[in-house]
Amino acid sequence: MADFTQRLEHAVRRTGSVLCVGIDPDLERLPPDVKKSGDAVEAVRMFCSEVIPATADFAVAFKFNFAFFEALGWRGARLLEELVAIVPDDCLTIADAKRGDIGNTARMYASAIFDRMKFDACTVSPYMGRDSVEPFLEFEGTCTFVLARTSNAGGNDLQLLECGSRPLYQHVAESVHRWASAHSATAGLVVGATDIEALAELRAAHPQTPFLIPGVGAQGGSAADVMAAAGRGPLIVNSSRKILYASSAPDFARAARTAAEATATELRAPS
Amino acid sequence: MADFTQRLEHAVRRTGSVLCVGIDPDLERLPPDVKKSGDAVEAVRMFCSEVIPATADFAVAFKFNFAFFEALGWRGARLLEELVAIVPDDCLTIADAKRGDIGNTARMYASAIFDRMKFDACTVSPYMGRDSVEPFLEFEGTCTFVLARTSNAGGNDLQLLECGSRPLYQHVAESVHRWASAHSATAGLVVGATDIEALAELRAAHPQTPFLIPGVGAQGGSAADVMAAAGRGPLIVNSSRKILYASSAPDFARAARTAAEATATELRAPS
Repeated sequence: MADFTQRLEHAVRRTGSVLCVGIDPDLERLPPDVKKSGDAVEAVRMFCSEVIPATADFAVAFKFNFAFFEALGWRGARLLEELVAIVPDDCLTIADAKRGDIGNTARMYASAIFDRMKFDACTVSPYMGRDSVEPFLEFEGTCTFVLARTSNAGGNDLQLLECGSRPLYQHVAESVHRWASAHSATAGLVVGATDIEALAELRAAHPQTPFLIPGVGAQGGSAADVMAAAGRGPLIVNSSRKILYASSAPDFARAARTAAEATATELRAPS
Repeated sequence: MADFTQRLEHAVRRTGSVLCVGIDPDLERLPPDVKKSGDAVEAVRMFCSEVIPATADFAVAFKFNFAFFEALGWRGARLLEELVAIVPDDCLTIADAKRGDIGNTARMYASAIFDRMKFDACTVSPYMGRDSVEPFLEFEGTCTFVLARTSNAGGNDLQLLECGSRPLYQHVAESVHRWASAHSATAGLVVGATDIEALAELRAAHPQTPFLIPGVGAQGGSAADVMAAAGRGPLIVNSSRKILYASSAPDFARAARTAAEATATELRAPS
């Protein structure tokens, strides 16, 4: 399997963009038309299986938010497995699950994501340290994005604490770099679009590390600022709600495609 | 629904102990007898549906490690829902899932755990801060155990970093206390059995907070040291492997019961 960063480069060349379409199917926001059957899982299936192919031309990746599937129970878990499998081969798939546990448990989570569901990448939390991240790095060709600086308001609570002479998130970024050095799989960082200064600092310190950037659009970060701060290193920028819920009319898939194209243009890759 | 701490007190009176039986069904360690069918999910179902009733007399709670079910795919998710439902009503159920995400996503995870699967408690990671924890605290009668000081080796990597004049884990514990003050559900802390000094410090600072303590037994902490350090506050001490894998012979359930009884005796509640 090709290296994750190479596959990302290929997808960026294909689309001319760094757009990742986030699959966070919130039942309350789905078009009335797809909810007609009254079954939540069927509604999400119908919605996602139209939106994914409609937007794939403009997406380097699809990021699946596990919470929205788990909230549907075991049928949601089954649907997630089905939907990952319909993503076209030239798009990357990201398991946004933010797992983090002791070594033997982390291995089980990694196996679920990489072995069973065949995701190309995932997100993990760093709080439990090295042995909670390393089991993910044993899967060749994949990328594990570790939370560094997140886009939510609460992201400030711990991540900005000064540890020695630097904030915790910088400490995390350097730790991840060190942990990854012993493994062949790729380690990346999650860096929110809402703290442009942190993004620019982290990019300067980690020019070759793939960054997964949420928080553009609905959460408030501007695409132009993100692209300027993120520079020329490997990059994936996620947009979910602006694309998924572009229209609640029966033409929702076409509207999602148009929104994806417009967002991809805002997120044009540096040439 | 009664307050979580009251229900815990009731379970402690019933058993005379603070033992939680951890359900981490590792296929490789299951008795050959239950693996005969060749189907992993069936083997785990057969194993757990014997071990849970066999040990319930000595358990204040059962803690389900989500990773071991997710590794089995969607049928594992379905099995998890089935098994939670067979736990006797006078035992508490803990979803050991260590979720942690932005507010709207945290709400989905909380809904999966509390609304759909009807767990009494769960574990969450603090790295994303206040709005990643608070949605869990909106479910009355439940307890959300936030990772503070974990029992694994990597737990030292971030948790011991000095932030201001104290280690990060103490900062987390105080933050959780503050976040919880606005909510009626209970917030607890995960404190590993492998750092007895941290356990004693945290108990002194948080005498009324429920502690969930993993890491006794296979991971190395001694029951006597834990009980001495944890004092008289609300307490749940988890043991998984020593009980689950007490025997790989066909009498595994009876052996698990005997091991649970012995462990419960070591973990006798202060009277």
